[in-house]
Amino acid sequence: MAAWKGSSVLITGGNRGLGLEMVRQFLESPNPPDQVFAGCRDPEGPRAKCLKDLSEKHSERLFIVQLDITDPVSIKEAAKQVESKLNNRGLNLLINNAAINLHRTLDETDSDDMMRCYKTNVVGPMLMAKEFLPCLKMAAQSSDLQGMCCRKAAVINLSTLVASIEKCPETFGMAPMYPYRTSKAALNMLTQCLSEDFRKEEILCNAIHPGWVKTDMGGKEAPLDVVDSVGGVFQVLSALTEKNAGQCLDWEGKIIPW
Amino acid sequence: MAAWKGSSVLITGGNRGLGLEMVRQFLESPNPPDQVFAGCRDPEGPRAKCLKDLSEKHSERLFIVQLDITDPVSIKEAAKQVESKLNNRGLNLLINNAAINLHRTLDETDSDDMMRCYKTNVVGPMLMAKEFLPCLKMAAQSSDLQGMCCRKAAVINLSTLVASIEKCPETFGMAPMYPYRTSKAALNMLTQCLSEDFRKEEILCNAIHPGWVKTDMGGKEAPLDVVDSVGGVFQVLSALTEKNAGQCLDWEGKIIPW
Ligand SMILES: NC(=O)c1ccc[n+]([C@@H]2O[C@H](COP(=O)([O-])OP(=O)(O)OC[C@H]3O[C@@H](n4cnc5c(N)ncnc54)[C@H](OP(=O)(O)O)[C@@H]3O)[C@@H](O)[C@H]2O)c1
Ligand SMILES: NC(=O)c1ccc[n+]([C@@H]2O[C@H](COP(=O)([O-])OP(=O)(O)OC[C@H]3O[C@@H](n4cnc5c(N)ncnc54)[C@H](OP(=O)(O)O)[C@@H]3O)[C@@H](O)[C@H]2O)c1
Repeated sequence: MAAWKGSSVLITGGNRGLGLEMVRQFLESPNPPDQVFAGCRDPEGPRAKCLKDLSEKHSERLFIVQLDITDPVSIKEAAKQVESKLNNRGLNLLINNAAINLHRTLDETDSDDMMRCYKTNVVGPMLMAKEFLPCLKMAAQSSDLQGMCCRKAAVINLSTLVASIEKCPETFGMAPMYPYRTSKAALNMLTQCLSEDFRKEEILCNAIHPGWVKTDMGGKEAPLDVVDSVGGVFQVLSALTEKNAGQCLDWEGKIIPW
Repeated sequence: MAAWKGSSVLITGGNRGLGLEMVRQFLESPNPPDQVFAGCRDPEGPRAKCLKDLSEKHSERLFIVQLDITDPVSIKEAAKQVESKLNNRGLNLLINNAAINLHRTLDETDSDDMMRCYKTNVVGPMLMAKEFLPCLKMAAQSSDLQGMCCRKAAVINLSTLVASIEKCPETFGMAPMYPYRTSKAALNMLTQCLSEDFRKEEILCNAIHPGWVKTDMGGKEAPLDVVDSVGGVFQVLSALTEKNAGQCLDWEGKIIPW
């Protein structure tokens, strides 16, 4: 497993599903990151219970950060708060995990569904990348690792197979989800744009499809559980280099076509 | 040139740029469509002057329709109005042309820019396809043409080379445009979804890149003029069949990778 020791990571939507499992696996890895920031919309609410329990066990390295990614003010506040804890070493890894899905046929989809999904799934990650860029730059500059990798400086966006425009004819029948598919295709474009933009700062940007996973979003029929999905995702993350810049990969490391 | 005789077409943003030129070339073709509906946000305003002049010359077949694609009510009203004029033969061709572009670096892009661009460039075309579906279905059903083509029933979305996620590393340096690129990548996904969804109704859906064209959006340095771009686009449209369903093609008929 990857040695995350000496690094800092931030995961949005860290209170349930894949986000919570990522937080857990970071903390329980043999060489955990020095700092794990778990973004959470409502840290005092019932959906944050498991995360709270984890933070009591790992109080020295887990920090819960109030973060609603649809709220630019909340993002700015979170960036300030995280920065103040980083001791000038920067943030090595930002994982844009939080997202929503709406199952909607064309007939059921209205303007509001489309806008809500886009705001969470694309505008949120865009603002996160923008507001945390100073922290990511600082991490890249203060690292003595050569090239690009997730332990140095990276933005990882959680994408999906159903974001693949090419694969759409194969996957369309799975479930009607106009707002989700269009937003995640846009997220893939955002990933490539960020990858080009941040290359000069040696910040790696990738999109990752975690597989179809048993979570509130994935549902009970999903074949993968969060433990295996996140295990796979972490292996992929730890192997990424500048050669992968901008790609969308699945939890087994296979490239997903755009 | 294509024989559009016997068909009906609707173009959004028909009052300037590529939209106006499409309206003009439809009307001035040797075998013009029976009905050309030109969507226009503000038919009485100064930006509709040329379209108004055209409609005086072609009053028997050109109909100006008040249409703001960011306003669901305006879209519903337009669908009613167009339907009432179609004499139960349906609408053969819907061209989602209207769009906005914002030149913005990451640092300059805010939530509002992203949302505004998405609303016009993706949600608008989605609602247009949804509200005009009954008219498109009627056209497909009442046509005696075999297979799929633009003279029977089709939705054409104006996309762009800079919507290509694959080509992003090549095109990123052209101009900073986060809101536009992400929205147009989502539009490509919408096109593929509509293509899958509408296939059973024999309604063709494609995305078209018109080239880099001298318009208010394209700017003065663009190499193509509207006459050549639309001429090329129309040749491509008239050659489309079910084999092309869902593809993004440029004005010369070349496939653009996703
Ligand atoms: N599960 C799958 O099969 C699957 C497949 C492909 C891709 N993915 C992707 O993987 C990621 C995680 O999915 P999941 O299955 O873990 O989803 P999930 O179980 O529905 O959890 C979603 C998480 O995102 C958070 N969130 C939603 N909106 C937010 C906002 N505005 N601000 C902050 N946090 C917000 C939720 O927080 P609250 O508790 O506050 O709502 C929750 O922590 C998503 O990007 C998803 O698209 C999942
Ligand atoms: N020009 C290029 O080089 C180029 C390259 C690739 C793709 N494209 C695509 O080609 C299409 C046409 O571009 P263009 O160059 O002709 O653009 P343009 O000169 O800027 O014209 C845009 C048109 O869209 C209309 N429009 C904008 N928002 C609208 C709304 N909410 N409701 C109704 N109409 C609206 C405008 O109407 P108003 O007059 O009321 O504003 C205008 O008629 C666009 O989809 C664009 O993305 C253009």
